Amino acid sequence: MPGARAKVALLGAGRMGEVRGRIVAHSPRFELAYLVDPRSDLAEELAGDYLYCQVASFDDVLADAGVAGVIVATSTDTHLDLVLACLEAGKAVFCEKPLDLELSRLRAHAKVLANPPAPLYVAFNRRFDPHFRALKAKLDAGLIGALETLHLISHDPAPPPPSFIPTSGGLFRDFTIHDFDMARWLLGETPTEVFAWAECLVDPAIAAAGDVDTARLILRCASGRLCVISNTRRSGYGYDQRVEAFGEKGALMAGNPRVSTLETWSEAGALAASIFPGFWARYDASYRAELDHFADVLMGVATPLTGYDASLGALLLADAATRSLREGRQVAVEAP
Amino acid sequence: MPGARAKVALLGAGRMGEVRGRIVAHSPRFELAYLVDPRSDLAEELAGDYLYCQVASFDDVLADAGVAGVIVATSTDTHLDLVLACLEAGKAVFCEKPLDLELSRLRAHAKVLANPPAPLYVAFNRRFDPHFRALKAKLDAGLIGALETLHLISHDPAPPPPSFIPTSGGLFRDFTIHDFDMARWLLGETPTEVFAWAECLVDPAIAAAGDVDTARLILRCASGRLCVISNTRRSGYGYDQRVEAFGEKGALMAGNPRVSTLETWSEAGALAASIFPGFWARYDASYRAELDHFADVLMGVATPLTGYDASLGALLLADAATRSLREGRQVAVEAP
Amino acid sequence: MPGARAKVALLGAGRMGEVRGRIVAHSPRFELAYLVDPRSDLAEELAGDYLYCQVASFDDVLADAGVAGVIVATSTDTHLDLVLACLEAGKAVFCEKPLDLELSRLRAHAKVLANPPAPLYVAFNRRFDPHFRALKAKLDAGLIGALETLHLISHDPAPPPPSFIPTSGGLFRDFTIHDFDMARWLLGETPTEVFAWAECLVDPAIAAAGDVDTARLILRCASGRLCVISNTRRSGYGYDQRVEAFGEKGALMAGNPRVSTLETWSEAGALAASIFPGFWARYDASYRAELDHFADVLMGVATPLTGYDASLGALLLADAATRSLREGRQVAVEAP
Amino acid sequence: MPGARAKVALLGAGRMGEVRGRIVAHSPRFELAYLVDPRSDLAEELAGDYLYCQVASFDDVLADAGVAGVIVATSTDTHLDLVLACLEAGKAVFCEKPLDLELSRLRAHAKVLANPPAPLYVAFNRRFDPHFRALKAKLDAGLIGALETLHLISHDPAPPPPSFIPTSGGLFRDFTIHDFDMARWLLGETPTEVFAWAECLVDPAIAAAGDVDTARLILRCASGRLCVISNTRRSGYGYDQRVEAFGEKGALMAGNPRVSTLETWSEAGALAASIFPGFWARYDASYRAELDHFADVLMGVATPLTGYDASLGALLLADAATRSLREGRQVAVEAP
Repeated sequence: MPGARAKVALLGAGRMGEVRGRIVAHSPRFELAYLVDPRSDLAEELAGDYLYCQVASFDDVLADAGVAGVIVATSTDTHLDLVLACLEAGKAVFCEKPLDLELSRLRAHAKVLANPPAPLYVAFNRRFDPHFRALKAKLDAGLIGALETLHLISHDPAPPPPSFIPTSGGLFRDFTIHDFDMARWLLGETPTEVFAWAECLVDPAIAAAGDVDTARLILRCASGRLCVISNTRRSGYGYDQRVEAFGEKGALMAGNPRVSTLETWSEAGALAASIFPGFWARYDASYRAELDHFADVLMGVATPLTGYDASLGALLLADAATRSLREGRQVAVEAP
Repeated sequence: MPGARAKVALLGAGRMGEVRGRIVAHSPRFELAYLVDPRSDLAEELAGDYLYCQVASFDDVLADAGVAGVIVATSTDTHLDLVLACLEAGKAVFCEKPLDLELSRLRAHAKVLANPPAPLYVAFNRRFDPHFRALKAKLDAGLIGALETLHLISHDPAPPPPSFIPTSGGLFRDFTIHDFDMARWLLGETPTEVFAWAECLVDPAIAAAGDVDTARLILRCASGRLCVISNTRRSGYGYDQRVEAFGEKGALMAGNPRVSTLETWSEAGALAASIFPGFWARYDASYRAELDHFADVLMGVATPLTGYDASLGALLLADAATRSLREGRQVAVEAP
Repeated sequence: MPGARAKVALLGAGRMGEVRGRIVAHSPRFELAYLVDPRSDLAEELAGDYLYCQVASFDDVLADAGVAGVIVATSTDTHLDLVLACLEAGKAVFCEKPLDLELSRLRAHAKVLANPPAPLYVAFNRRFDPHFRALKAKLDAGLIGALETLHLISHDPAPPPPSFIPTSGGLFRDFTIHDFDMARWLLGETPTEVFAWAECLVDPAIAAAGDVDTARLILRCASGRLCVISNTRRSGYGYDQRVEAFGEKGALMAGNPRVSTLETWSEAGALAASIFPGFWARYDASYRAELDHFADVLMGVATPLTGYDASLGALLLADAATRSLREGRQVAVEAP
Repeated sequence: MPGARAKVALLGAGRMGEVRGRIVAHSPRFELAYLVDPRSDLAEELAGDYLYCQVASFDDVLADAGVAGVIVATSTDTHLDLVLACLEAGKAVFCEKPLDLELSRLRAHAKVLANPPAPLYVAFNRRFDPHFRALKAKLDAGLIGALETLHLISHDPAPPPPSFIPTSGGLFRDFTIHDFDMARWLLGETPTEVFAWAECLVDPAIAAAGDVDTARLILRCASGRLCVISNTRRSGYGYDQRVEAFGEKGALMAGNPRVSTLETWSEAGALAASIFPGFWARYDASYRAELDHFADVLMGVATPLTGYDASLGALLLADAATRSLREGRQVAVEAP
């Protein structure tokens, strides 16, 4: 059916709103009808310059029966209420991770979130990264036999402004949360124990705000399999996102794509081009792929890959890591 | 101005028509209004399934004053007449290379083609490849000092059907033509002498059709700089497209992108993922970039990067190569 | 002085004896006079085939005043007594790691070992590996600013025979001991706390013998810096020995050398040659370099790079790891 | 037989004499008895410092019946006479390439050189390089099916002193000669036609001395297979020595080894360590391997891999290249 596009609205005109909006606006599978943000100047600018859509209120969105889906890209503390309102209105939801930073709030709405009246997708975008998907496919195909250990590397290029830290939820719930989800996805089971060590080595302002910026964690599964997570808020060499999977017959290594294949050969050696400077460029393909997945959900040909369960699973690991760090010992992960 | 899209038509529903059409149909910068192809079933299928546009005749296109540009992706022998008709009708043209296989025909229309009444872009897409552009930028920035020698590698994964050969124009005019253009672009001058050696090593049917499938050429500039071109119709390992530039202070090497960064480590060694299997995937970014360039041309903010001059320059090198192969000696390149 | 060679004896005709002996026998800096091993058939075969030296008793060695140095490559449980006897006889010693597996025994002889009457070198060979030395040199030169985190990867290709396990001292004292030394060397300080998680995932016979074969450890320094160690007794892809050092301005990565630079390009991708299958090949250059260092020691132009202090430091980390694994918590490293 | 060493003499205390001498002096398979060089100070210094041998005259060497082999590492113009004298005296010869620069002189002694009274090895060392041998082995094993095209890259790091040029024999006979031999070895046949283009782009002093410093050649075999050779006297990035072999099922690529596996990751990209700065380091393993081959020859367990035939074959290609360059056309290679 040529021209069949799903009518959607976008909530949030900030950084992620722009990332999502540009993809949706340029996709033949969506009709982006509305952009909602209380900061009307931001909304007008984004809608006019790039998104070719109308600025509206959240009520307008809910009231438009033609809107099939809503993309929630607002600040984290607003996610849950917006999601619940959309689901109640029967609209499919694409929500930036996390659904919420608080376990108690998630659980309070477990019933509707776990069996939502409309599809709920929570954006753990890394599962859609083509490099990690290629690794997962070979893993599932048994190319290295049984998986035994895993190493997830997530190094940010540079720390966020200190003002971001207090509302971030802390390193484990804001940042490592992606790695916790990756661990669950790649291991095919939820680790049962966690040990975490973390420090503030990068920016004293982060310590002053009560957080850490450098962490190493070990997750242990009931099967005995081990997963190491490496995190830093500042690498000094770009946005480093890698997965190393070790099995009984070999290893699978998903490395960093580079901005080009160019190598410069000089007496100093061979310089390969930079890796990507940030998430928006590194994960561009995954952002496109997960919106394509959302289009499939809206068309009724797919069910959301990740929703409440994945959100809860990752948050339980983050909370366990927080306790481990405080207590200086390995701790059990709470059951969902 | 949100929503400002350039209205265009696409001529040709074949392989390249589909490549171009999909990009145009999904771009927010174009409104693809018409698809033209005498093979109406092909046209209907492509228009309906992917392109969301109307099937029309070439006359319809010319008659629609709202059509700003035409993308010519038909068979090579029709290019020149279609281009001339479009230009005469005041429509900007995006034409697949080559404009024409015959030097005499190009020259017969030199006046209008060199100073066309509407912009004329001829699609030497490799100049828009991000890897080659990165190399060119570093070259121009003097990173390796003066360029001295160049090596262009273009190896196809598998030979075309033998039926394609007789109308192809032969290896040098159909295939090496891209390398001739790259040589002119990267050297910043047109080589003045050519030596070519070519054989049929891949498929005897190609020899039977009077052509070769494996070639090595050396181009020599007035400055003494040398350029080697390596061509084969069948590599056995994918679509190999590389540039090596050697200068007084080092070298710049643009390698093959791979389908993912995945490496599989086993006792046999470390297997890096495949390179791309064909031009459509390998050069996807360049196809997008040159259509973006055409959108800029249509918006009046750019003039075509390559047109008649580039077409003529590359063809003169191809004709020199043909003479060299026949005569077994280095030959001078005819002046434009 | 042409021909000036240091006269030495070799104790041990086993695996490491052969590795050391071949280098010494072929070096112009040594005169290998004696080979000692109670298994006289082994000794005769090795001496005759490769080492061009005389089979003798340990007493013969001690009695020959011309012998300047002794290379101790016997089984671990004999190291300490042999070393003490050699030192007492005024002979410089090159001893395979470890000096001893028991902290109490090391400490009982601390006085003589820490200030030995003749030079004592304990072979932590990895400090002499050219790849790791290159990394250390750039680290010391400040190329990545302050070092923050470290990752040491030591993966064996295949597990040892189960019969080896009971006398090995266990994974941490037999295997990880090298990583503990590397951590101390590269960090420039001894970590003060350790957390270890280890499992038996490779071979149940290892568990039956009371040991583990797969481990992940985190070491923490007083400065807050963190070091991860990855160990497995069986990689499935060769002898994987890497160092990753992360600092404030970038990272230094010492990878695996390969048996050749050959790449095989096929439709499956680009296969780089295997890494080395075992320590003898991978660390050949380091074995040569540390014997060259010993020659320097014998010539009086160097003092041993590692001796009692390094042995004790690494063993204290191993013992802390053992306690951590037992107790499930981070533990403090005992002071020397 | 422990201690069985072949007694040899070394002619030449220059650059290659030192390279060869150090290996021989440190090998357990040789007894280096004499060093011969008319420049007695050079000879004394080298003999005393590194080689632990006696300075002698050529007559001394010939007169010592115990000398089984002679290593000829003198200046090129003396090779042939020395070789003939040694062979006549019944001594096996290891001669640096080339035997002679003049075809007429080689042919004048064809009878004795082709069927020498004692073994004659001419040092085309690249055939012993482990990377190229690995490539050859996979080629012979049919890993890429039938070989179709070959690319040999030999780029020197920096030009020789201009004073070297007049006696060098010119680029093709001094430098490309190695590539001609590699082509013959890897193709398994002697190319029958050659085209050469060469320029002086690096150092005008080389042109003033009547030579060129940058060349590209194409060799063509009777089978139609093509081989490109790339040469420059100055790369600006080290000693670049690579082989690329393209076959019907894929390609084999022997790249440049690096001084270490270290990579430095920064915002500029990932810098791999330098390649080797010169032949002595790059080809160290090949120099060792070919002397080991000579030891085998002396022990009677091997016959020389390359001798008169290889010398003649490579020289005929060099002479053809010289003619091609002069005539501007492809030329036939003279029959041996």
